[in-house]
Amino acid sequence: MNTTRKTDTICAISTPQGVGGIAVIRISGSEAKTVCNKVLLSAKGNKVVDSFAPNTAHFCCFYDGDKLIDEVVATYFENPRSYTGEDSIEISCHGSLYVQQRVMETLVAAGARLAEPGEFTMRGFINGKFDLSQAEAVADLIDSKSEASHSLAIHQLRGGFSKSIADLREKFVNLASLMELELDFSDEDVEFADRSDLMDLLNEIETQVTGLTNSFRLGNAVKNGVPVAIVGKPNVGKSTLLNALLNEDRAIVSDIPGTTRDTIEDAISIEGILFRFIDTAGIRNSDNEIENYGIERTYKAAEKASVILYMADIASGNTDDLFAEIDSFKKEVNVGDKQFIVVANKSDLLDKDKSVELNDDIVLISAKEKDNINTITKRLVDSVKGGRQINDTLLSNARHYEAFLHILEAVTAVRNGIESALPGDLIMVDIRQALYYLGLITGQVSSDEILGTIFGRFCIGK
Amino acid sequence: MNTTRKTDTICAISTPQGVGGIAVIRISGSEAKTVCNKVLLSAKGNKVVDSFAPNTAHFCCFYDGDKLIDEVVATYFENPRSYTGEDSIEISCHGSLYVQQRVMETLVAAGARLAEPGEFTMRGFINGKFDLSQAEAVADLIDSKSEASHSLAIHQLRGGFSKSIADLREKFVNLASLMELELDFSDEDVEFADRSDLMDLLNEIETQVTGLTNSFRLGNAVKNGVPVAIVGKPNVGKSTLLNALLNEDRAIVSDIPGTTRDTIEDAISIEGILFRFIDTAGIRNSDNEIENYGIERTYKAAEKASVILYMADIASGNTDDLFAEIDSFKKEVNVGDKQFIVVANKSDLLDKDKSVELNDDIVLISAKEKDNINTITKRLVDSVKGGRQINDTLLSNARHYEAFLHILEAVTAVRNGIESALPGDLIMVDIRQALYYLGLITGQVSSDEILGTIFGRFCIGK
Repeated sequence: MNTTRKTDTICAISTPQGVGGIAVIRISGSEAKTVCNKVLLSAKGNKVVDSFAPNTAHFCCFYDGDKLIDEVVATYFENPRSYTGEDSIEISCHGSLYVQQRVMETLVAAGARLAEPGEFTMRGFINGKFDLSQAEAVADLIDSKSEASHSLAIHQLRGGFSKSIADLREKFVNLASLMELELDFSDEDVEFADRSDLMDLLNEIETQVTGLTNSFRLGNAVKNGVPVAIVGKPNVGKSTLLNALLNEDRAIVSDIPGTTRDTIEDAISIEGILFRFIDTAGIRNSDNEIENYGIERTYKAAEKASVILYMADIASGNTDDLFAEIDSFKKEVNVGDKQFIVVANKSDLLDKDKSVELNDDIVLISAKEKDNINTITKRLVDSVKGGRQINDTLLSNARHYEAFLHILEAVTAVRNGIESALPGDLIMVDIRQALYYLGLITGQVSSDEILGTIFGRFCIGK
Repeated sequence: MNTTRKTDTICAISTPQGVGGIAVIRISGSEAKTVCNKVLLSAKGNKVVDSFAPNTAHFCCFYDGDKLIDEVVATYFENPRSYTGEDSIEISCHGSLYVQQRVMETLVAAGARLAEPGEFTMRGFINGKFDLSQAEAVADLIDSKSEASHSLAIHQLRGGFSKSIADLREKFVNLASLMELELDFSDEDVEFADRSDLMDLLNEIETQVTGLTNSFRLGNAVKNGVPVAIVGKPNVGKSTLLNALLNEDRAIVSDIPGTTRDTIEDAISIEGILFRFIDTAGIRNSDNEIENYGIERTYKAAEKASVILYMADIASGNTDDLFAEIDSFKKEVNVGDKQFIVVANKSDLLDKDKSVELNDDIVLISAKEKDNINTITKRLVDSVKGGRQINDTLLSNARHYEAFLHILEAVTAVRNGIESALPGDLIMVDIRQALYYLGLITGQVSSDEILGTIFGRFCIGK
């Protein structure tokens, strides 16, 4: 642990910003009681904070000098049995912006400091209340918008993910022991005595690490949702498709107030995964500057999306145009490793006597008749899941994913080392690398910089 | 008291709407513990709610059936020592919208009912925790945006206003006693034996009632702010004046996040009173439809304002135009009992050798040079205060004001009755009227309708 342990007393509004019935202001640090003793009196006007027993709530009057600011309830949590592991007091005041502001000003004047984002949680981590991946789960939990993302976060918060990491760590340690054994015998030229045990264990580790690493695609989709751009020429039925999709699977997120509807066209939760559909302006050649600006934005939306639903009008039955159109689109937008799903719309207008040459990758639908829409949703889900199930052992954090890429690299190096009969102590270096990156995840290894990045993303007051 | 006493268990999110570090969900009613016992378990998975001691906080896991929703802190308040006077539990959960929603759903499934706006406070009132004017002060406190409005609300919350009403009530009761005395002696034709005592007391009551009634103008301004429309022809310097005003007295409200800046052009707190300035489109004759629409809006803003600052350009030194202009404006806008302040701008451009004929009502300024701006602020403050001081005994609630108008009527009737030697029992009717309206203020007299109106204005969760 490389982090300076701070114990000065911090304060912050922990409840959402705005006006409400009540607001909660949290004070934590070695001087929490001293600070509150200056501002809180009993209803009868007596000093009471020193007499607070742990985990008790008290009706108090909050004063700035002689000026009564509010009637509050103060709850005391004694170290180490608090969220931060320090002495903490939570003041529940009336949810007026003016009162919240005055309470904060008075606490600062009384010796508390404004907390930085995530500082309460960081202190909890530093004081050993939970590990780093659990601390990160707090932010994930607060951000969770769907059942699946909530489940992932709560599992991680409760230490489920930490347990997987601990299991993996133990296996690496065992691997190291077996290697040590090899090293002991290496003088006697009896290399890799327990070779089959060692290879079994390595295989097991590799499967587990690969599995977790690959689960990030799904985990990340569960956590952050999947942006899907619907693109195509004007009047091919993009908006009709969007309506058909929304109609079939009304999203739970639509019911949550405060989700950022303005930047998201519409979101649907399909099998626990949040798909965020971006309806775009139709693509066509134009000399009109404003129209071209719209088309530029369409290309940009497509560049940013994880999935591109490319829609075309198949009513004519002519597929040559379609392939030419797609080629031309791909010249403008780098599809890269995005999922690219071609949707041929208006099957209802097709001449029934003529057959249409479509390859299997193209989904033939009628958005208007809501025909074959479920094939699209299935493709969307498959594109994210890739045969994987949503369960609690998904990697959903980019930082953890990065660490796992390094761990996977180390595992490959260990395997290559063994196979090419490298000296055991060289192989040990790679095992130590893997252990180092596992430690980064749980915070057994960390730095001010890492912690700063992690907790800087938290909201203030948590 | 005409209100059905409800004791069923209610729940609501009491913290501001949105995402934050934590959110607080409040449960109150006879079954608060029973409901929570279905959803809260200790960290070890045991039932714990029944063992909660009053005023203690407990770390718990919140479950919907087998599904862990969140780790929470639950604080128990036992009747009658709670805000509502009932058994209450406050659950502090993570401030995720999803978690807040799931916790509420689970509580409702467990037998709680969604609370109506202000229902917690209404229950506190019904259970005798505070009187009606104190309950109203809770809403005022939550809405308070300036030091003066906060002071008024906290004074009322602490029962200061209730005490004034109780004093007044006692005086009316004394007045009634003296009248009864008169009635006892009336047979003996010794009318108004203690006439001088009685008249002294009546004078005292009248002064107090008149004072409080008249304080509403200031009290209301302190509580709600004073809308000031700045109107005049184009280019007379309206925006320059606004900037000059803002420059001199930057408002504390500007520092409070979430104040509705979009509907208020700009607000300044002068001597504790919030003035909300509405800058308007310039008035001129025009055939342009869009421009005329703007001028219509200016007239509407002026109609809605309490104070009109009418600005004119005095650079020419010609005041005839000015008076004609004002006359024409007053034909469009009914100035009524609004404060109408005429501001003659651009004094810096006046020919120094020529004198300008201005009456005392016109304020000569230079907005550009910030000359004489303080005369305007003084006029604004005077227009509201009318010689009165901001203190804690101001009437700020429209409902109380209405009651006081009736009380004042009753007092006048009592005086007329005595002076015209009406029979004492007729005068008693008016005294009883006054007592009735005093009772309305504190809630000693109330009805479902009155309570519905008062608490319907509260936020949910309070």
